Amino acid sequence: MSHGPVPAVPACSVERLRADFERLAEFHDPERPGWTRGAFSPFYAASRDWMASRMKAAGLTVRRDAVDNLIGTLPGARTDAPALVTGSHTDTVEGGGRFDGIIGVLGALEAVRTLADAGIALEHELRVVDFFNEEPNQFGLSCVGSRALVGEVTREHLDLDDGAGETLRDALARVGGSPDDLPEARWSGDDVAAFLELHIEQGPVLEHEGLPVAVVSAIAGIDRYRVEFTGRPDHAGATPMNYRYDASCAAAETVLAAERLAAEEGDGVATTGRIEIEPGAPNVVPGRARLWVEFRSGEREWLDDCGRGLDAAARAAAERRGVQADLHSLSTSDPVAADTRIRELLERGNTRLGLPPRTMFSGAGHDAAHMARLAPMGMLFVPSHGGRSHCPEEWTDLEQVATGARALAQGLVEVDRARRRDAAPGEDGTVL
Amino acid sequence: MSHGPVPAVPACSVERLRADFERLAEFHDPERPGWTRGAFSPFYAASRDWMASRMKAAGLTVRRDAVDNLIGTLPGARTDAPALVTGSHTDTVEGGGRFDGIIGVLGALEAVRTLADAGIALEHELRVVDFFNEEPNQFGLSCVGSRALVGEVTREHLDLDDGAGETLRDALARVGGSPDDLPEARWSGDDVAAFLELHIEQGPVLEHEGLPVAVVSAIAGIDRYRVEFTGRPDHAGATPMNYRYDASCAAAETVLAAERLAAEEGDGVATTGRIEIEPGAPNVVPGRARLWVEFRSGEREWLDDCGRGLDAAARAAAERRGVQADLHSLSTSDPVAADTRIRELLERGNTRLGLPPRTMFSGAGHDAAHMARLAPMGMLFVPSHGGRSHCPEEWTDLEQVATGARALAQGLVEVDRARRRDAAPGEDGTVL
Repeated sequence: MSHGPVPAVPACSVERLRADFERLAEFHDPERPGWTRGAFSPFYAASRDWMASRMKAAGLTVRRDAVDNLIGTLPGARTDAPALVTGSHTDTVEGGGRFDGIIGVLGALEAVRTLADAGIALEHELRVVDFFNEEPNQFGLSCVGSRALVGEVTREHLDLDDGAGETLRDALARVGGSPDDLPEARWSGDDVAAFLELHIEQGPVLEHEGLPVAVVSAIAGIDRYRVEFTGRPDHAGATPMNYRYDASCAAAETVLAAERLAAEEGDGVATTGRIEIEPGAPNVVPGRARLWVEFRSGEREWLDDCGRGLDAAARAAAERRGVQADLHSLSTSDPVAADTRIRELLERGNTRLGLPPRTMFSGAGHDAAHMARLAPMGMLFVPSHGGRSHCPEEWTDLEQVATGARALAQGLVEVDRARRRDAAPGEDGTVL
Repeated sequence: MSHGPVPAVPACSVERLRADFERLAEFHDPERPGWTRGAFSPFYAASRDWMASRMKAAGLTVRRDAVDNLIGTLPGARTDAPALVTGSHTDTVEGGGRFDGIIGVLGALEAVRTLADAGIALEHELRVVDFFNEEPNQFGLSCVGSRALVGEVTREHLDLDDGAGETLRDALARVGGSPDDLPEARWSGDDVAAFLELHIEQGPVLEHEGLPVAVVSAIAGIDRYRVEFTGRPDHAGATPMNYRYDASCAAAETVLAAERLAAEEGDGVATTGRIEIEPGAPNVVPGRARLWVEFRSGEREWLDDCGRGLDAAARAAAERRGVQADLHSLSTSDPVAADTRIRELLERGNTRLGLPPRTMFSGAGHDAAHMARLAPMGMLFVPSHGGRSHCPEEWTDLEQVATGARALAQGLVEVDRARRRDAAPGEDGTVL
């Protein structure tokens, strides 16, 4: 066991990272826009065989669990200590990019290689996880792999269907998972010392401020609603304005109300990402309109306020037009705070590397939000060009990726060493 | 030739009308909502064979022209006079009803039968036309039959395709028309003395005012626009509100602006019947939005003002959000005024039958708007329950239908006799 001062991790290799990112990007559906690599596609399956080979090349022992999480393990100096875990995902949204999630897996492999090259061995076992299917899938579920690790994939989840006859259970089996053995994929919190995830910001703030890295304070809670307006489909020519029950006008007013709720409060964001109008003919007054509205914030109270505000705005907009408004809560998730001690250690690591401090709230959901149920969690962000994500233009310079991978490696070392120091002599130190 | 006082037409038969409406309604697509009878469907084809038989039973000589207009002719007492023409259409919109257009054909047949039963012969030849395909079809064209009669179906129209590989030309041939012979379907204005059309109001005004019939003052001009907003598709969680380029919020503001333009002015109507949002995912800020907005009015100036107002509102809403707005004019048509003399004669006929006077603007387009190019035009409206139209609930009591048919018959008699009186002795009197 090394009991000297905490070492500073040397720079990661931009060229090794570039080669990995370029190779992984080749696995995508050529018939869809961007770098589309859906979790139940052959492109994803092929990419993960390659990823397994990259894990092995980095010196990791590789296995795949019942939910098809790809897990690479490096033994620690101590065999009685819980593991440090890091990772992210490599599936993409339709028309997505080359960095979202990917940097947390390829960056972790580069961290492993950099530590090995520098002769820095960890006390704890290290696990690098390529979580299965983080992005929302055709069954309406996201973070399938990380949910399974913490025992959050239920039988009801497995029964979800894609509207075309396939269930999540069948799809999992089709891609090589063992849906019946899902309970075996569950990890015990006793085995995990901490979880760290490197990710792109997916927003414009770091670039705008000219900063290389941020430590995440919390992962947003997300409340999603469907608002349905029922008016009356009348002839668009023969129905005077004061005789109408126009569902689309009530919906439009509600879209603006959602925008205003978030703009006024400033502690979160509101998005109406989907709008449906029926019957949808230019010459018929819309009799029905549906909005999909989501709020994200680090504050549960803010989310609750916005839900109430949306409901009130929809009812007022509908009432003005003799239309009925119905608000359905589609899903709700609480904000997840990063572990305070892990945050401190990540900040200490960044300082050790000369990286300026910046703390940031994550508006996006991540596998880390689920892993936080198992162990103390922390996240690092690197800049996204123009704040773009979930689109083909998503980009982070490979130099910025290398800085992120180095910060991750340093963070792992900080946590590894801090756990040793925090533990009383002869104890394992399960509390950081 | 009868030179006595203008006779009052007796009441029409509610029961004959009810039987005809019920039989025609049986011809519809059982797999679609309402009474769907699209112009290129087998249900429409079958219905028109039946309609031809009903025309014959009413004593008309029946022929079908190159555009598949169904034309029933009754000789007049004079063989040297131009024809009085009446009619409408029997195709429906998807999910449409049992009265729109249909009343103008079945009502005309009942008028013919009622005149015959009462021994009232017309001086002029009478033509009852079941115009082919008045409703907007899958090729983007409406009023195909009446357009063809006035020579307004062009080669470009025939080349329109339905997006699934069939052109209007092929579809016309498929249902028995002769697209190459379309010029032969054109009528000369010299052969037509006047065109009258009985129609349902398709709006709520007559029912609201408790009136049985209205004389139409003008048919609305319609200006249609597509407004396209181009923003940026960003991550809905990671993009703070003040970094967004949200196309759907700009679109929503424009929907409300269109509603307000019409509500403020009061001389027409504005409808946003269709909205498209891209990419349409709940977790992506919409990067693109498209609106289909139409304005209808009897005043060209009002339409022009609204077009300018829409453009200004779209640009302002877009500019506030850093979004680009593009306004495309999809189609424009001028209002068509009813002929002043025909209006007077229809009003005189209504007065003769004891029907209270009411003049009304038609927000909907009709075959009459095209026939007005050929001859003096007039229209009659009867109430629509709840103002409903283009929906399965579209309804007019058969007693109200009978009153409308009687007003149409009386109107035909008034025009028939007025043309005789207006003509100088020995002249034909082509000017009413």
